[in-house]
Amino acid sequence: MNIGLDMMGGDYAPLEAVNGISLFLAEGHQNVTLTLIGDAGVVKDLLIAHVIPLDNIVLVHASQVIEMHDHPTKALREKKDSSIAIGFQLLGTGKIDAFISAGNTGAMMVGALFSIKAIDGVSRPTIGAYIPRENGTLGLLVDAGINADCKPENLNQFATLGSLYAEHILGYKNPKVGLINVGEEEGKGNLLMQAAYALLKENQHINFIGNIEGRDIVLDKADVMVCDGFTGNVVLKMAESIYDLTKRRGVTDEHFDRFNFERYGGVPVLGVSKPVIIGHGISKDLAFKNMISSAQLMLEKDLLQKMKDVFVQKS
Amino acid sequence: MNIGLDMMGGDYAPLEAVNGISLFLAEGHQNVTLTLIGDAGVVKDLLIAHVIPLDNIVLVHASQVIEMHDHPTKALREKKDSSIAIGFQLLGTGKIDAFISAGNTGAMMVGALFSIKAIDGVSRPTIGAYIPRENGTLGLLVDAGINADCKPENLNQFATLGSLYAEHILGYKNPKVGLINVGEEEGKGNLLMQAAYALLKENQHINFIGNIEGRDIVLDKADVMVCDGFTGNVVLKMAESIYDLTKRRGVTDEHFDRFNFERYGGVPVLGVSKPVIIGHGISKDLAFKNMISSAQLMLEKDLLQKMKDVFVQKS
Repeated sequence: MNIGLDMMGGDYAPLEAVNGISLFLAEGHQNVTLTLIGDAGVVKDLLIAHVIPLDNIVLVHASQVIEMHDHPTKALREKKDSSIAIGFQLLGTGKIDAFISAGNTGAMMVGALFSIKAIDGVSRPTIGAYIPRENGTLGLLVDAGINADCKPENLNQFATLGSLYAEHILGYKNPKVGLINVGEEEGKGNLLMQAAYALLKENQHINFIGNIEGRDIVLDKADVMVCDGFTGNVVLKMAESIYDLTKRRGVTDEHFDRFNFERYGGVPVLGVSKPVIIGHGISKDLAFKNMISSAQLMLEKDLLQKMKDVFVQKS
Repeated sequence: MNIGLDMMGGDYAPLEAVNGISLFLAEGHQNVTLTLIGDAGVVKDLLIAHVIPLDNIVLVHASQVIEMHDHPTKALREKKDSSIAIGFQLLGTGKIDAFISAGNTGAMMVGALFSIKAIDGVSRPTIGAYIPRENGTLGLLVDAGINADCKPENLNQFATLGSLYAEHILGYKNPKVGLINVGEEEGKGNLLMQAAYALLKENQHINFIGNIEGRDIVLDKADVMVCDGFTGNVVLKMAESIYDLTKRRGVTDEHFDRFNFERYGGVPVLGVSKPVIIGHGISKDLAFKNMISSAQLMLEKDLLQKMKDVFVQKS
């Protein structure tokens, strides 16, 4: 397998990307080729300086960089020789099997949605986010902020996609899927959630446990927490602020430290036909390493085929 | 002024209600009559046992209680001699000027919305919730969960009502009103928030500071945080769970202790024509005392007339 990595994306690129590669390769992984996209001269010097063997590494030069403040659509159109544009071009033509970047999130989403096709039957791809839970595990929140306005069927598809990711990548057997709502009973909620509940209840591909409430998000009540992207964004940013708050208050606690979202590396775009992982701008070595490992696992488990199989059945 | 108090509502009623009355009366307040509605025999014995002077107290006997698990509409219809039903009857006929209960929240909302008229021009009354902020003050979240589906104009009215409450009751001069959204820039968000932004920007009765994000909720960025009741409910319950989490983790911190929502006594129903305050079921003495003080302040400041003046201008 050949995993493509944007070496120019993120606040600490390319150095922390190189450190992440070093961590990843230290584990072995002879069957993985890494295609590193960016300023080839700079990247090569860094690889050599870090004594990283070049056997399974392919360098692809990109003369441009999409900056964090660039307008996503405009940048992708105008910076055709940027690492992100090249990455999606390589992914689209099958020269790489997965693409990872901690760069401009908007450009990554636009690239994922428009350069790579959605899985047949998926009307809206989504993005997940990890939520640390008190029992030490991670829950998956979908949608974490891409689709601000959703239809009930979108939420039903997020549930299926999130459940497959949770099962095969996070390792939950028969993951519990909960719908974020304002009360536990069926019939609660706004019109969207009432209609979504009815669909989730009939969805044969998931283990639907019913509604979960705001207070259940940081508990292990559900492994996959389904909501529209508006709610997901507010929930995620509020969870992130808990960490900031504990740090400012001088609270040291192992569990609250897990609210440091820098640790989790990146979240998958779910529902597009190839693995795309978008990292936090502040990703450091461990985050880059985790993103490469996630992409590897998605390919090893053939997650995309599993998703396609489900949606073929349904359509 | 005459403030009515449901003595039977809440997990610790009537004892903690009596303790709250004791705390309130210890501050003076000769101009306040308290009308206590409940089992008159039991309440009178408790008042005497707590050496509470009966000069400014009126006891109104209620032979029934709406329990926490009772169906709100059904209970109000069937238990006509319950403390909540009598309270709204007294409020509706002007025998009391404000009504407070820590009892069945649903029955209190139904009573407030259907026994007491909405202010002319207010299409949907709302309920606020206090959010503790890092600088030690309280922010006001509206809607905190009553109106799961909202129109942009509802949010605009919540903003006006919340702003008046924040100014006159919480004491914020020219309170900052923020719209809870997924990004700071105008144009961000779902269709509801995009349309609401346009209305809030033109609202002459508020100091609109623009969008705020999930991470800003526990900061002092906005004094009044406006959202639909679905989002508000999820946010509020998530904030409540932070306190539970800190307690379970053994974190002791003055600020996180302020996430203990039991402390705040009760939240006002905003947009109905008379002061109605709904307390948490677990309200204790300080909570009851704070609710009485809030009602007193709402009456002293003639908050309802101020609200009516604004909506008369607008319609």
